[in-house]
Amino acid sequence: MKLYSFPSAPNPRRVTIFAAEKNLRLDVVNVDLRGGETKTPEFLGKNPSGKIPVLELDDGTCISETVAICRYLESLAPEPNLFGHDPLETALIEAHHRHIEFELHSSIGAAWVNGPIVAAAGLVEPIEAQRLRGAGLTRKYYQRMNDELAARDYLAGDRFTVADISCLCMMDFAAAMVDLKPDDGLTNLWAWHTRVSQRPSVTG
Amino acid sequence: MKLYSFPSAPNPRRVTIFAAEKNLRLDVVNVDLRGGETKTPEFLGKNPSGKIPVLELDDGTCISETVAICRYLESLAPEPNLFGHDPLETALIEAHHRHIEFELHSSIGAAWVNGPIVAAAGLVEPIEAQRLRGAGLTRKYYQRMNDELAARDYLAGDRFTVADISCLCMMDFAAAMVDLKPDDGLTNLWAWHTRVSQRPSVTG
Repeated sequence: MKLYSFPSAPNPRRVTIFAAEKNLRLDVVNVDLRGGETKTPEFLGKNPSGKIPVLELDDGTCISETVAICRYLESLAPEPNLFGHDPLETALIEAHHRHIEFELHSSIGAAWVNGPIVAAAGLVEPIEAQRLRGAGLTRKYYQRMNDELAARDYLAGDRFTVADISCLCMMDFAAAMVDLKPDDGLTNLWAWHTRVSQRPSVTG
Repeated sequence: MKLYSFPSAPNPRRVTIFAAEKNLRLDVVNVDLRGGETKTPEFLGKNPSGKIPVLELDDGTCISETVAICRYLESLAPEPNLFGHDPLETALIEAHHRHIEFELHSSIGAAWVNGPIVAAAGLVEPIEAQRLRGAGLTRKYYQRMNDELAARDYLAGDRFTVADISCLCMMDFAAAMVDLKPDDGLTNLWAWHTRVSQRPSVTG
């Protein structure tokens, strides 16, 4: 299986960590994201949204969207389980995971898309008020996670799941590329970050 | 099972249509959304994001997030299948569904959140440039769906799925509440809209 990726992008990293947890081997193919390769007719045939990651199966079938890819990988290698063992646990993990995607990721995304790096690349006309809103909502969500992690070790409960992978990758991206590192005072959040960053799937 | 809902909100409607497809009965409890009921400590105990819909099971367990709720309902009533019969079909449906959520829903959401109704309620300081960006991206996605529906009858393939429910509810909301009705010239999109709107789960 081929994974179309880009080195600094957080979403392909979610897939590579997920695959490493499963001991699944993916052949990573880095695309020329800044050169517009994901917007070519050939790539749009793989993913009409023109985004990475895309998983290409050996028969040429392409799966786009990080979470769709990860769920497919879970079907190939069910253990260690990362999406839930039964319908109720699956639903509760998905709820936590979607809170992170729709409230944290989208806020970091708003700060990134309207920030200086994207503007310098000439890709989007920045809206400063929207960048500030995204940054503010990101900080608010960091605080929420810090509060929630007072009562549990992982974001969706008492064990490591796909929600932790998604949050780790986006938090690292925010710290490195969007100037949105969580405050040092968020000790539960940083303890969680240390805990998940030490996993072999992340260090490897 | 209780579904916390609000009459004009598109996300609870996704769940009620989904449940109707499955012939599952939910007791709908409308919350006082405009009066701030979803931000009370009691409701935040059900969903820390303070949003509807929330599904409350008979033992008091609460599941938030539309798609997590729908996937749980699918586990209770597997047929008619709306998420996919096997891992690959499930992945492809999820990819289409997430394109709709992250590209169409988020764009309509940006136009809504920064629009006059939300501003009049004093909930969010509107950012006009972001409202216009959301409206523009919505129209672009309508065109994409119209193009894709030239080759298939439903959004994620040749049969009705959860992706169709999600798009229908958000498109109806956009037309009614955000002044973002698709242009009449998008005939494939309108033919699809007629097709799905005639289902008993929608008309009932």
